[in-house]
Amino acid sequence: MRYLTVNDMEYLAVGAAVLGTGGGGDPYLGKLMAKQAIKENGDVKLLDLNELPDDKLVIPSAMMGAPAVMLEKLPNGKEPETALRAIESYTGKKAFATISVEAGGLNSTIPVYTAARLGLPIVDADGMGRAFPEIPMVTFSIGGVRASPMICCDEKGNMVILETIDNAWVETLSRTVTVAMGLSSMISLYVMDGKTVKRLAIGGTISLEIEIGKRIIESNRKKLNPVDAILELTKGFRLFEGKVTDVQRDLTTGFVRGKAKFEGIDSHKGSSFILEFQNENLIGLLDDRPVAMVPDLITVLDRENGNPITTEHLKYGQRVVIIGMPCASIWRTKEGLAQVGPRYFKYDVDYMPIEELVKRKRL
Amino acid sequence: MRYLTVNDMEYLAVGAAVLGTGGGGDPYLGKLMAKQAIKENGDVKLLDLNELPDDKLVIPSAMMGAPAVMLEKLPNGKEPETALRAIESYTGKKAFATISVEAGGLNSTIPVYTAARLGLPIVDADGMGRAFPEIPMVTFSIGGVRASPMICCDEKGNMVILETIDNAWVETLSRTVTVAMGLSSMISLYVMDGKTVKRLAIGGTISLEIEIGKRIIESNRKKLNPVDAILELTKGFRLFEGKVTDVQRDLTTGFVRGKAKFEGIDSHKGSSFILEFQNENLIGLLDDRPVAMVPDLITVLDRENGNPITTEHLKYGQRVVIIGMPCASIWRTKEGLAQVGPRYFKYDVDYMPIEELVKRKRL
Repeated sequence: MRYLTVNDMEYLAVGAAVLGTGGGGDPYLGKLMAKQAIKENGDVKLLDLNELPDDKLVIPSAMMGAPAVMLEKLPNGKEPETALRAIESYTGKKAFATISVEAGGLNSTIPVYTAARLGLPIVDADGMGRAFPEIPMVTFSIGGVRASPMICCDEKGNMVILETIDNAWVETLSRTVTVAMGLSSMISLYVMDGKTVKRLAIGGTISLEIEIGKRIIESNRKKLNPVDAILELTKGFRLFEGKVTDVQRDLTTGFVRGKAKFEGIDSHKGSSFILEFQNENLIGLLDDRPVAMVPDLITVLDRENGNPITTEHLKYGQRVVIIGMPCASIWRTKEGLAQVGPRYFKYDVDYMPIEELVKRKRL
Repeated sequence: MRYLTVNDMEYLAVGAAVLGTGGGGDPYLGKLMAKQAIKENGDVKLLDLNELPDDKLVIPSAMMGAPAVMLEKLPNGKEPETALRAIESYTGKKAFATISVEAGGLNSTIPVYTAARLGLPIVDADGMGRAFPEIPMVTFSIGGVRASPMICCDEKGNMVILETIDNAWVETLSRTVTVAMGLSSMISLYVMDGKTVKRLAIGGTISLEIEIGKRIIESNRKKLNPVDAILELTKGFRLFEGKVTDVQRDLTTGFVRGKAKFEGIDSHKGSSFILEFQNENLIGLLDDRPVAMVPDLITVLDRENGNPITTEHLKYGQRVVIIGMPCASIWRTKEGLAQVGPRYFKYDVDYMPIEELVKRKRL
């Protein structure tokens, strides 16, 4: 066990955005919220998975919707705890700890915010080891945990409780509610006991995020480039170096859907790269051929300082390094690929692990 | 106090559709459900408003969405009681009776179904004295009652509980949920005590519906035309006689929006009539000039037998009588017109009572 400090939030936000693969929300806002809550309420206990009692309740805390909207429609600050307390009151059970459902600038920091405000520990783990765009795309769901009862809260004070027949209906109904709430909501769902969390969660995510963030921030202080350090920590690959030549985004479905185009520089001069996303980066095409695809991670880094760039911050002219990282092994099982593989996202390709794709391309 | 019998359901369904002003759902399905439930569980106690104890709880039961869809997406029969029981369990209070929120083929019979299944009495009243398309359009809302907590249930077994900051947000969120559930849901909302019901409900609606239905059915047995009897009971006016020449409907918003055109016959030969609707008939134009408008009632009757024709059953070639009836006086107040007057529905006209419009036209 250790404690998460205000300073850790600087690291966590940046590292989480690397694993957020373009989605998971802007790191800035979540960081501010978490820092403020720790300042006011004290450091937050970070529990290793093996420190979690089997029979205690864990209630995740998260944000849903198009993260870009959160920058304009600021939370009032009460929604995350309202959502968690509402699920306690609805189920008649108290939370022992909270946990992150996904890695990402917002969804790694919001649970720390909630933990600080409510005086709860947070588990050093998450349900994805990265970010994904839809509710059932968590290891908990693959392992048979029900997403409902689920709570959605908005910044105006509206609350919706969902009880559904399966996790796909949670996604359908909570998405439509979140769109009606103004494209974002704070949520609480996947109520689990400690035993289930230990069986299904991806351990060490928070620590890994902090470590990645620390390397990036410390490298920047020393005027060093942190990309190699990120690749070492995540067992990742350098896929492309280039500049952004086009970005298309569409918010109408409650997701940020779109694509970005890049033109190669230096060793990639003459090559092109296309990145398609739905909140998160889904597939990367090097000279029109897939070089990384879901569920493996694809992240765009600022070429100068290695800072991760989320899809909502991609802009014409940015010089970037695009990296790919292998996903947690559960996503490469038949059940995992059915839920988050390229065919789920309507790509007519069979999944190939990034290690193999990279070997073929001799990157 | 009296009891509602299987036979009363024949009358109630038809009479309710007259006050349903084209909406409120198809009378056939609700009638079947209510008859079956009474057969299995016994007659349902019908309480006069003055028989209702001040401190007892009344929980309305209703259907939401595009009624046309209910004919293809049949309820499983459990949703109405599930919705009512869920609101009891959520609020921790037991219902003493149920009540209808609106007059209409489905929404007058579904509460009887729910009452029969749960062994509850039903109050002889409703919240509109007619049908309206949106959640806040009930006298309860005008009187300051909160629509939430509200429950929406679908036939698959999904349930949504709404807690909102106002009744407009209940409309927004429950409408989007109902559309996602497949365009219809069974709902429970506007939990009130008896005192509030007595202060705000429109009394005698169920009895009036039964009386109207009885006149129509008995006239048909005697090969007589019941239109004059309907006008007598409802203080209504004969607005037009003609045949349907065109019907346009759009279901995409979760409402049945559209218009029907009619060509005059007999005394109206050479004249035309246009009827615009959003689930319910909103405005009637005789030779392009308004002759009746919300909140007054406009209903299309079959010219041969006086049976009401809901908007989803309007068809090319039907020969009809269009009648208009004055609404309950609460709808003619400033607050009432702000919620359900012609300007709320985007018509650029000031409300004029049907009695005056009819006088001008010398119908």
